Amino acid sequence: MFQGGYTGKILRVNLTDRVATTEDLSVATAEQFIGGSGFGIKYLFDEVPAKADALGPENKLIFASGPLSGTNVPCASRMAVTAKSPLTGAVGMALTGGQFPVELKFAGYDILIVEGRSEKPVYVWIRDGEVQFKSAEKLWGMKTTDAQQIIKNSLKDQNIRVACIGPAGENQIRMASIINEWRAVGRKGLGAVMGSKNLKAIAIRGTGKVAVADKEKLKAARKVFTGAMKESPVLYPAFSKMGTGMVVDHTCHMGIFPTKNYQSTGTYDPIEKIGTEMQATRNTGKEHCYGCPVGCSQLNLAKEGPYGGKLTEGPEFETYYSFGGVTGVENIDAIIAADRMADELGFDTISAGVTVAFAMELFERGILTEADTDGLVLNFGNDEAMMALLKKMAFREGIGDLLADGTKAAAEKIGKGAEKYAMHVKGLELPAYDVRGAKAHGLNYATSFTGADHCRGYAFQEIFGIPVPKEVDRFTADGKGELTMWNQDVRTATTDAPTMCAFLLDMAVVGIATENTAALMNAVTGLSFTADAVLKAGERINNLARAFNVREGFTRAHDNLPERLMTEPVPGGASEGHFISRAELDQMLDEYYTARGWDVKTGSPTREKLLELGLENAADQLG
Amino acid sequence: MFQGGYTGKILRVNLTDRVATTEDLSVATAEQFIGGSGFGIKYLFDEVPAKADALGPENKLIFASGPLSGTNVPCASRMAVTAKSPLTGAVGMALTGGQFPVELKFAGYDILIVEGRSEKPVYVWIRDGEVQFKSAEKLWGMKTTDAQQIIKNSLKDQNIRVACIGPAGENQIRMASIINEWRAVGRKGLGAVMGSKNLKAIAIRGTGKVAVADKEKLKAARKVFTGAMKESPVLYPAFSKMGTGMVVDHTCHMGIFPTKNYQSTGTYDPIEKIGTEMQATRNTGKEHCYGCPVGCSQLNLAKEGPYGGKLTEGPEFETYYSFGGVTGVENIDAIIAADRMADELGFDTISAGVTVAFAMELFERGILTEADTDGLVLNFGNDEAMMALLKKMAFREGIGDLLADGTKAAAEKIGKGAEKYAMHVKGLELPAYDVRGAKAHGLNYATSFTGADHCRGYAFQEIFGIPVPKEVDRFTADGKGELTMWNQDVRTATTDAPTMCAFLLDMAVVGIATENTAALMNAVTGLSFTADAVLKAGERINNLARAFNVREGFTRAHDNLPERLMTEPVPGGASEGHFISRAELDQMLDEYYTARGWDVKTGSPTREKLLELGLENAADQLG
Repeated sequence: MFQGGYTGKILRVNLTDRVATTEDLSVATAEQFIGGSGFGIKYLFDEVPAKADALGPENKLIFASGPLSGTNVPCASRMAVTAKSPLTGAVGMALTGGQFPVELKFAGYDILIVEGRSEKPVYVWIRDGEVQFKSAEKLWGMKTTDAQQIIKNSLKDQNIRVACIGPAGENQIRMASIINEWRAVGRKGLGAVMGSKNLKAIAIRGTGKVAVADKEKLKAARKVFTGAMKESPVLYPAFSKMGTGMVVDHTCHMGIFPTKNYQSTGTYDPIEKIGTEMQATRNTGKEHCYGCPVGCSQLNLAKEGPYGGKLTEGPEFETYYSFGGVTGVENIDAIIAADRMADELGFDTISAGVTVAFAMELFERGILTEADTDGLVLNFGNDEAMMALLKKMAFREGIGDLLADGTKAAAEKIGKGAEKYAMHVKGLELPAYDVRGAKAHGLNYATSFTGADHCRGYAFQEIFGIPVPKEVDRFTADGKGELTMWNQDVRTATTDAPTMCAFLLDMAVVGIATENTAALMNAVTGLSFTADAVLKAGERINNLARAFNVREGFTRAHDNLPERLMTEPVPGGASEGHFISRAELDQMLDEYYTARGWDVKTGSPTREKLLELGLENAADQLG
Repeated sequence: MFQGGYTGKILRVNLTDRVATTEDLSVATAEQFIGGSGFGIKYLFDEVPAKADALGPENKLIFASGPLSGTNVPCASRMAVTAKSPLTGAVGMALTGGQFPVELKFAGYDILIVEGRSEKPVYVWIRDGEVQFKSAEKLWGMKTTDAQQIIKNSLKDQNIRVACIGPAGENQIRMASIINEWRAVGRKGLGAVMGSKNLKAIAIRGTGKVAVADKEKLKAARKVFTGAMKESPVLYPAFSKMGTGMVVDHTCHMGIFPTKNYQSTGTYDPIEKIGTEMQATRNTGKEHCYGCPVGCSQLNLAKEGPYGGKLTEGPEFETYYSFGGVTGVENIDAIIAADRMADELGFDTISAGVTVAFAMELFERGILTEADTDGLVLNFGNDEAMMALLKKMAFREGIGDLLADGTKAAAEKIGKGAEKYAMHVKGLELPAYDVRGAKAHGLNYATSFTGADHCRGYAFQEIFGIPVPKEVDRFTADGKGELTMWNQDVRTATTDAPTMCAFLLDMAVVGIATENTAALMNAVTGLSFTADAVLKAGERINNLARAFNVREGFTRAHDNLPERLMTEPVPGGASEGHFISRAELDQMLDEYYTARGWDVKTGSPTREKLLELGLENAADQLG
C-alpha cells in the first residue's frame, strides 16, 4: 500500500487482556497527519474518551515515528509519545531521539498504541512480528539504566533497544519521564501514564529495513538538506561541539536566563559558574542519535566533591536552567549529578527543577518551613537540599510527595498564596527563556497545546535573530500572534510529525523547511506532498490538538501566564524593565486566535476551520 | 598444533610502543600449566624481573583463560588475571567470570599479555585478529558501567565485552579491581596495575569458536559432570536460588562470621539483619555467566532510605562480611549500595571493608580522631560513614588517601600500634571465615601465594563437613598441613587453571574432580592428561608461584596470621574460646612445608622439588 517511509502497520497492545494485534495505517491518515505527533494526536482524539482519567486504563500511550525515521535522511531517529497528560489534563506529547525510534520502524511499525492496564508489572517484548508480555515484577524499582541492561541480559540480546520508566514513573509522579538509553520523553508526565499501566518497559528488536520509494529523488532532496546543514554557521561549528548548553551564555547576555524562580533574572550572572567555559571543563565526549552526523549530546563528567565521578548525557540548556539558574544552584557538578539522577529515576528535569525553585521561594518566604520540608533547608542555591528533594519527589517521600505532581497541584494543596510563585501554564512548568524579554515565547507558552512548552513553537527569531518569516522585535507584542501560529505549525509539520530533529529547523533549514520536508517525504514515501500541504498538516494537527483540549474543558482563560511575569518587570540585565502586561497578552491572544480562525472569545477552533481542515469528527464533537 | 580447547595463540600488547604481536602457545606449556592461573604464573615468573615495581612499566598484566572456556562445558567462562600485586608484593592473581573470558577465546587467544605503560590514557580494542590502541582520555574518571557503555556506543557494537577500571584503578589505590559487566577481578589490586599502565579498558569482540578435539568423548565427560551437578544437594536446590549469600547464616551458626574487626565474632547475631531471610526481601532476580545453568549471581535491590533504588549484582557472602559483619553495619541496603559503589568505582569489597573496619577500631580506640578522619565519625555500624570513607578511598581524598593502600600500608604510616588491628596476611586483608574456628582456613590464609585468600585453597571440609579427602575437625591443627596442600593443588588444578567455576568443585564434583577435569580436558584438547597429571600441574603451579614470592624476598616469617587471631579467643558463639596459638600455626606450617617438600626453616621450595616438577628455570634462579 505504501511504497516507502511508512511500514503501514499499527501495533496495538492491550495490557488488560494481554493481546497484541496489528492493523493497517491508511494512506489518508498518512497524508493528513504525516506521522509522529500527528499520528499521536489523531489516535488520542479518536480513541481516548473525553474526561478520561489520565492515570486510568482508558488513557492510551501512543508511540509514533514518522516517515523519515529509519531512512538515510540524517537526524530523523525521532519518535513522538502521546497520551492525555496527568500533569496538565491536556494533550501530553513529547518526542525523543536516540536509537529506539528507528528500532520501532525496523520492527515493522509506524505506531505502537498501548492500551488498558496490566494487573501486575509487565514489560512488552517486540521482536519484529512477535510480541510477548513478560513479567516485570523483578524489574520494579530499578533505575532506568539498570532496567535496560537487565532486560537485554535476560533476553540474551545486547542489540535490543528499551524504553522504560524508573521509580518516578512507577510512583506515578506527574512529571515522570520515559527513558531510552539516557534520552528522555521528558515532559508532561508520560512516564506516569506508563506507570499507571504497570508497564515498566518496551523492548524492541527490529531486523527489517525502511523502504524508500525513489532513491534518486531522495538523493537530490537529501543533498539540499545536508547542504543547508553544512552551510549553517552554527550547526557544526558550535552546536556539534557544545550542544544546547551553549545557549546559557547567549540567554544570559540577552537577560532572559531565569534565575531564582524568576525573581532575579538578569541581576546576577551565572555564566562564570555554569556557562560554556565551565561546561568545557566537564566535557568528556559526546553521543549521536541514530543517523545523526552532528552529535549534539554532550557527555559531562562531574569532577569535584560529593558529585565526583557522576557522568551524564547532558545537561541540556534547559537543565542548566532548571537545576541551575531557576534554583540558584551554581555548582555545575551538582547540576550534572541531578541530571543523571533525573534520567536514572525517570523524571523531567524542567518540571522537577522549577518545582524545587517554587519550594525554595516558599521556604524563603516562610510559607514552607523546616517542619514541612522534613528538615531540608530549601534556600536558593542549596545544591544538597535540591538533590535530596529531587529524590524525595521521585519516591514520593515526605515533602517530596507534596511536590511530586508539580507546582500547580502543590500550590493548590499548600494554599497561602503559593500559586503566585508557581511558574507554570496549564500545570506544565515553564521552560527557560524568560518570556518577559521574548514575548513570542510568552504567547507560545500560553497557547501551546501541551502547556508551557518551548518545543511546540519555539520563537528562534527572538533568540537568534533569524529573519524568517520576518524580522521581529523580542520586546514587542505586535505581530506575535501570526508569528506564533507559523512557528507552531512549521515546527509540527517539519519536525514533530515527519519525524525530524527540531534543532535542524532552527539552525539549518528554516528558510526551506516546508519545501525540503515535502521533497524528502515525497522521495521516501512516493506520496505527493506540496510545501503548502505540509504546512497545512501542521495546522491540522495543531487544530486537532486544540480540539482535544477544548473537549477536556480548556478555554481562552487557560491560555495564560504566571502572574509574576505579567506584573513584575525583569529586575536587571539586558531585558531590565520588561514584562508582558495583561493587555499585551490579550492583544497577542486576540491576534493569535484571529490568525488561526478560532473564536476569539473562547479560543475554540470554529466549526468552519475544523471542516476546512478535514476534521469532521472534531467539528461534530465540539458541536 | 592444538586439536581443540586451546587457540594456541598469545596476544602480546605493548603499551609503551603501541605494538601488538602474537606468538604461539607451546604444547609443553599447555601440558605443564593447563591454562588460567597456570599460564599467568608461568609468564609472570618468566617475564617480570625480580623486585620489579608493581606499579611500574616492568610489571605485566596477564589475562589467561583455560582450555574448557568457550566450549560447551558448563560454568567455564572464567579467566585468571595475573601480575605482581601492588598490595602484597607477591603473586597477584584473581579470577573473574561473566561473558568477557569466553570473548577472549572467541577472538582467538588463550592469553593476553599487557606490557609497558602508555604515556596517555588508552584502551585496547581487540576485534578478532585486529588490535587497535584508542584514546581513553575522555573515559578517564568514568565509573565502570558508564565506561563500558560509552565504549560500546563509540565502537557502534553492543556485543563488545569490556574489562575496565574505575576511578579507584586510575588513582592506583592498591585494592583497585578490574570490572567486566558487574563482575570483578577483585583482589590484590590488579586494577591499580592497569591504572599504572594508563590502561582504562580492554574491549573485545570475538567471532570465532573454540574447537573440540573429540565431541563424543566430551559428551560422555560432560554427562558425568552435569550428572554430579544435578545430584548435588546444594547446587540447584539452594545455591542457584540464594548464591553465596546463603553462607551468612551457616557461618553465623558456626560462630565464624567475623564481626567488628574480629572483636565480636559470635557475640551477636547479624542473621536477622543481613541473613538469608532478609536477603530474600531484597532479591530481584539473578544473572548467569556465559554457559552457566546455575546462575548464582543474585540481583539485589535496596529498598529503603538513602539507598533506595540501588541495585547490585551481589552482595556475595564475602561482601556481607566486609561491608556488613566486620564493620558492624547491619543495614542491608547500605551493604547493597556499597557493593554497587565498589563495582562502579572499581575496588575490592573485601580489602575495602576490612580496611574500613580497621579504621573504625582505631577510631573507637582513639588512635584516629575526627581530626584525622575529615570529621567522619567512624564508629562500628555507622553505614553513612562507611559509604563516605569508601568513596574517599577510591578518590584518595583526605583520610581516604591514607587508607587506600590497605591495612598494612596504613598501619605503617599511622604507627601507634595500629598494626595490631590490621587484619591481613602479606598485606592482603582477611576474607570472611574467622580462622580461629576453622584452622585449615588459617593455614591456607597464611600460606596462599596471594596472601589471605579464601579462593586459593578453600577448606570446604571445615565449612560443609564434606569428608573428601577425609573427615576433619575444624578446631584442631592436626593434619591441616597435608589437607591445605591438597586443597590448594586441587583447587588450582581443577578450577583456576582449566578454567572452571570454583563453586562446582566444592558443591558438586569434589569426589571426582581430578578425574573429571582430565576427562573433560582430554576430550576438548586431544591431549592426554591423567588425574595424577592434573593434580601434579596444580602442585607445579603452586610451587612456581611460591618460587616467585621467594625471589621477591618472602620467607616462612611472612606465612603468618594477625596477632589478634593468635592471642584473643573467639569471644562467643559456637566457636567460643578457640584461637590459633603461635605453636599451632608453627605446627601446621611444619607439616605443610614437609608435605610440600619445601625447606621447613625458610619455607622455600627445594631445588629437588622444583626439578621434580620440571621447573628448571625456577630452580636455577632460587639457587
